Amino acid sequence: MNAMTQTPATVSAFAWVPDFAKGHVRDLRVRWALEEASLPYGTAKLSPGENAGAYRDQQPFGQVPAYRDGEVEMFESGAIVLHIAERSEALMPRDAAGRARVLTWMFCALNTMEIPIGSLADIDIFNAGAAWTKERRPAVEAWARKRLAELALRLGDNDYLDGDRFTAGDLLMTDVLRNAPAALLAEQPKLAAYVERCMARPAFQKALAAQMADFTGSPPPGWN
Amino acid sequence: MNAMTQTPATVSAFAWVPDFAKGHVRDLRVRWALEEASLPYGTAKLSPGENAGAYRDQQPFGQVPAYRDGEVEMFESGAIVLHIAERSEALMPRDAAGRARVLTWMFCALNTMEIPIGSLADIDIFNAGAAWTKERRPAVEAWARKRLAELALRLGDNDYLDGDRFTAGDLLMTDVLRNAPAALLAEQPKLAAYVERCMARPAFQKALAAQMADFTGSPPPGWN
Repeated sequence: MNAMTQTPATVSAFAWVPDFAKGHVRDLRVRWALEEASLPYGTAKLSPGENAGAYRDQQPFGQVPAYRDGEVEMFESGAIVLHIAERSEALMPRDAAGRARVLTWMFCALNTMEIPIGSLADIDIFNAGAAWTKERRPAVEAWARKRLAELALRLGDNDYLDGDRFTAGDLLMTDVLRNAPAALLAEQPKLAAYVERCMARPAFQKALAAQMADFTGSPPPGWN
Repeated sequence: MNAMTQTPATVSAFAWVPDFAKGHVRDLRVRWALEEASLPYGTAKLSPGENAGAYRDQQPFGQVPAYRDGEVEMFESGAIVLHIAERSEALMPRDAAGRARVLTWMFCALNTMEIPIGSLADIDIFNAGAAWTKERRPAVEAWARKRLAELALRLGDNDYLDGDRFTAGDLLMTDVLRNAPAALLAEQPKLAAYVERCMARPAFQKALAAQMADFTGSPPPGWN
């Protein structure tokens, strides 16, 4: 416990995104972590276009979330979730071996799993109908399917990746896996049940509702 | 300092990879971090095919590196580099604000930067000549170019991402950027100079030489 623990955090979030992105913007991960850790926060909402200019001092790529608590200023959802996990035992054990396992699952979620799953979303959502995807999609789907099968094998009959307790690794993994095509995830019933189990947590539901409630802005001029 | 600091680490590495991958396998990041931190390590070399079977207990996806020191067992190069950084001030400042900035750059390297740069490598190296890449490549190159320009703007005239000291964030960022096409990186001269500056470090050179020296194995049967 130090003074910083008392400072409410501020998380940046978009005031408007297209419908398909609602509930999937990366500040969700940070809100979820803060809810699990019972830490208060407020949001700094950005209208369309406000992620340029001065905001780049906080986030050089114009993405959300950027984060601040006390003297800590950072960005990258994975890094912020880790910072929050270090403020609360709710998300990470304190012993060296347990901590190393959580770090492993956090990076695994955002690298080994999210890269194939994100590539598939890139095809299905952002490039739907583009000619190149017809030739490319089978290989990307096979890649994602392989990774899901390997992860399911490791999860086995455990409730969570580290056994019987939820950690920051499960938090990031869930947010990655819930963006996989439903039919693909369903091929691994234990993994599908794991994602449902994590998404049923009150902290996730609260974070999701809070992100949705913050979409009070208008689309940019010319959006249709 | 604790007992664990005294246990030499073990890092898994492939005894053989195709020529284009030599010097680019992910255990390089871990070797580099260990060299920067002046921590001793040994390698557990895997011949082709040995990344199946029992090795999956250490690394469920059959990738390298897997890592062990004392009671700590982990995988994912980013997670391992972070674990090492926590064992040595050579790679991460100890104050909360500085630490948060390093976490930010580590995740930024492996997510915001590596995803576009890796997608470009996926096209140019693993799918060279495939029909779909002709339509797809310009958009991926534009994505990587945009991210490189944004990163260069943030780096400015600093020697390193966090100002005047090298951190684990620079280590991962360098290993990502050195895999960008040379002509693309050269469009941002300050970023290209930054990558050269980091690669000139004795610890990087030592790590690279050690990875190269460990390729003593034979290709799998049928490789041509």
